[in-house]
Amino acid sequence: MDAGQNSKQLFKLNDQATTYKRPSLQELLERNAQRAQDFKPILTFDDMSNLPVEKQIPMPKIFIVSCDDPRIIASDFLGLKQWDAVVATGVAGRIAHQFENMLFLDHFLHFEDIMIIHHTNCSAGIFKNDEIHKALEERAPGHPSIRLPGYEDLEQSVRDDIEFVKNSPLVRKELADRTTGYIYDIHTGKLNPVI
Amino acid sequence: MDAGQNSKQLFKLNDQATTYKRPSLQELLERNAQRAQDFKPILTFDDMSNLPVEKQIPMPKIFIVSCDDPRIIASDFLGLKQWDAVVATGVAGRIAHQFENMLFLDHFLHFEDIMIIHHTNCSAGIFKNDEIHKALEERAPGHPSIRLPGYEDLEQSVRDDIEFVKNSPLVRKELADRTTGYIYDIHTGKLNPVI
Repeated sequence: MDAGQNSKQLFKLNDQATTYKRPSLQELLERNAQRAQDFKPILTFDDMSNLPVEKQIPMPKIFIVSCDDPRIIASDFLGLKQWDAVVATGVAGRIAHQFENMLFLDHFLHFEDIMIIHHTNCSAGIFKNDEIHKALEERAPGHPSIRLPGYEDLEQSVRDDIEFVKNSPLVRKELADRTTGYIYDIHTGKLNPVI
Repeated sequence: MDAGQNSKQLFKLNDQATTYKRPSLQELLERNAQRAQDFKPILTFDDMSNLPVEKQIPMPKIFIVSCDDPRIIASDFLGLKQWDAVVATGVAGRIAHQFENMLFLDHFLHFEDIMIIHHTNCSAGIFKNDEIHKALEERAPGHPSIRLPGYEDLEQSVRDDIEFVKNSPLVRKELADRTTGYIYDIHTGKLNPVI
């Protein structure tokens, strides 16, 4: 698909859908109230540490950055069980936006691996940073430039993100060395490593 | 629970768990290969726009920021169906780390609501930014200060994040006005609005 106006028309077209009605925020809050009625309390960290050692759950050692596109659910395509990994999501799965989050968690979890996962047909590859920067500049002229998640080339975006981690002096070297990148193919469901 | 050393011991304790073996990165990749064997291709944006209008799915209008703690699954406690909302996750659900992501998506999705969701017993309330800043400063002296997700007060962290959105000239006023905050209570499963 071409970028720009076509993409905008595409998203407008989808907005005319009639079969499925989008829930309002109020409806989401009602769904939560409904679900809370037969809710089983989640264990606190204290609760967990008070279990006998053999029943405790080991803390996650893998930090995953993936896209917040609702079609892309890393826990599903990786078959994650609770605590297998931390999954941070944002547009395209760019590490820059999750970097301080990762550093914070790494301080006490001591991650062993960082997995950076981008995917085919990502909106960040369809829309362009330039267009959005221009629109934001019009909205708030002179505002300092910000780091948007869009990219020109899918594989290169993964490589750039791996380099981002490896080039930061804030990351432990052994963790930087074990930072790997992948492209999730929405046609095959396969995670393809980016070398 | 007290902060600092106690929390560190807590996470070490959990690391001795024996019943559940944490999967390696290689095992996660194998789980993906397994799941890809009977995978049904996901529709691309083009595929979706080529469906008859009544069968198309309306694009999401709610941007949710929530925690990447594996116990806290916003799509579960809000009963989200595919495309009901975009859920961006990071430590504690702090908006600062998702801000450019939100601006990027808002450019073509035109969100109607932003929901900021923090939760009880969050590691970002247990660990302190100061401690982590100090450790990072030792690792890379003189590195520019970064914005860590930890907070001192749970309700205030939600209010601060709402203010962060409302105070930015980069956010459309109608969206800033409809930015709301919540605390998810892991004992009750209820989402409590923060006023």
